[in-house]
Amino acid sequence: MKELIELIDKHLDEYIAIVYPEDIFKAMKYTLMLPGKRLRPVMCLETTRILGGDINNAMPSACAIEMLHVQSLIHDDLPCMDNDDFRRGKPSNHKVFGEANAVLAGDALLTFAPQLIIEKSKGLTTEQILRILHEYTKFAGAYGLIAGQVVDIESEGGKLVKSPKETLDFIHLNKTAALFRLAVRIGAVAACADETIIEKFDNFAKKFGLAFQIYDDIMDEISSFEELGKTTGKDKNSGKLTYVSLYGLEEAENKFRYHIKECYDIIDKYKSDIFKEILDKLSQRIGSN
Amino acid sequence: MKELIELIDKHLDEYIAIVYPEDIFKAMKYTLMLPGKRLRPVMCLETTRILGGDINNAMPSACAIEMLHVQSLIHDDLPCMDNDDFRRGKPSNHKVFGEANAVLAGDALLTFAPQLIIEKSKGLTTEQILRILHEYTKFAGAYGLIAGQVVDIESEGGKLVKSPKETLDFIHLNKTAALFRLAVRIGAVAACADETIIEKFDNFAKKFGLAFQIYDDIMDEISSFEELGKTTGKDKNSGKLTYVSLYGLEEAENKFRYHIKECYDIIDKYKSDIFKEILDKLSQRIGSN
Repeated sequence: MKELIELIDKHLDEYIAIVYPEDIFKAMKYTLMLPGKRLRPVMCLETTRILGGDINNAMPSACAIEMLHVQSLIHDDLPCMDNDDFRRGKPSNHKVFGEANAVLAGDALLTFAPQLIIEKSKGLTTEQILRILHEYTKFAGAYGLIAGQVVDIESEGGKLVKSPKETLDFIHLNKTAALFRLAVRIGAVAACADETIIEKFDNFAKKFGLAFQIYDDIMDEISSFEELGKTTGKDKNSGKLTYVSLYGLEEAENKFRYHIKECYDIIDKYKSDIFKEILDKLSQRIGSN
Repeated sequence: MKELIELIDKHLDEYIAIVYPEDIFKAMKYTLMLPGKRLRPVMCLETTRILGGDINNAMPSACAIEMLHVQSLIHDDLPCMDNDDFRRGKPSNHKVFGEANAVLAGDALLTFAPQLIIEKSKGLTTEQILRILHEYTKFAGAYGLIAGQVVDIESEGGKLVKSPKETLDFIHLNKTAALFRLAVRIGAVAACADETIIEKFDNFAKKFGLAFQIYDDIMDEISSFEELGKTTGKDKNSGKLTYVSLYGLEEAENKFRYHIKECYDIIDKYKSDIFKEILDKLSQRIGSN
């Protein structure tokens, strides 16, 4: 997994050259190149690999998903959104480059990601590239990631159109799970997988996304700034709707174990060390009982 | 031209349905559906038509360009950018929906625009759609529109890497001309035009974009809020780098006439009433000598 992350980092760095006007490219790369787990591109490439595809074909798309993810983090951290001063243990983008550049750096990543897919996906057919772009636009926008964001913000403001449980699941099936779903779907398309396989991996990613978010909610409750590299305890202090606030810590942990178990069940037959490592790492901290 | 604008408005309205979570779709449509000149989609469709193409094939792309344009306006108006409270005579997006939703509405338009091109361009080949998406991503991002924005903001802060004249042209060849260039390029691609024709129209749009910006700078100097529907005199009051501030009113008018004349010369052979109307309208207010 370490080698794969290094390979992704190398490509992320190479794909964006610093040209005039330098500030925008520096702002784009600043948050992008902070050391991260690169979970989404790793899952994209590993999906391609275990389905018999060539990870080089999927690399531009995998990096595009990381760019999309980082874009959402940059805009999320803005004072008018979550107002977070730190990200991955460093000052967030707008603290370094100013708010205007942070807005534009996000916009630029959101546009560069599909450009990268178009320009660098050498081993894929035109149809595959178009399908990947379609998946990208569906999951990145108001029918995916952004829908989750909007409902998240509304729920913080006390506006709930659906029940708290439905609202919470909607937020995270979109906000969190959307990019994992996009990652495995694109990985599968790059490996020429059929629709049944794409849906199977999509289902895995939905459950993984929910487990991941529950984990995140639990960690916000029980961890320190030093452990996570970002402000913690914010959810609790702001009265935010989370799996912990809605179900309590114990029930949230049970839900986490339930989803993770399903993930293991789906991915088991593919004998993927990397998916196993991802699931193991997430499980470790919560415990298996 | 009136019928074409109505047709564009009808499609813009139809392409975005209001579904859950409604606020994001309402925010996207609010600024998008404010009555506007729809210059970019009009120029896109008219380019397709005069090059022998079917405007129905170009309609999704034309509307996508308007969405991209409106996205840039929404983010431009934010307090951390130009801090404009009015747009097209109405309160700007963040004044109605709040800053967080305005950021997300812009992001959503930026992602929905290419999704629309992929989903609705029925009469185009896969290659044409991919080419259009490539043009879209190149002109929308850090190598186009956003580059212009960034240098514009930097120059306001007194940071000039190039000379004032080079800087001003760079800003507007990107910030303003980029979307006109994108419009005619996509219009030409939708009509299956060859590269020579695409470059010819690109050249037209560069000159038109500069003329348009000079016109805008002149209007900001000599018009009232009531005439333009947005705050005027801001450039002057903020000491902003504009064609008027750099060259003076008279020389700016001369530059305008020079670029407009070239536009007439390029487009003349196509006998386009619509391009003639657009150029005539812009020329009227400045006067021809």
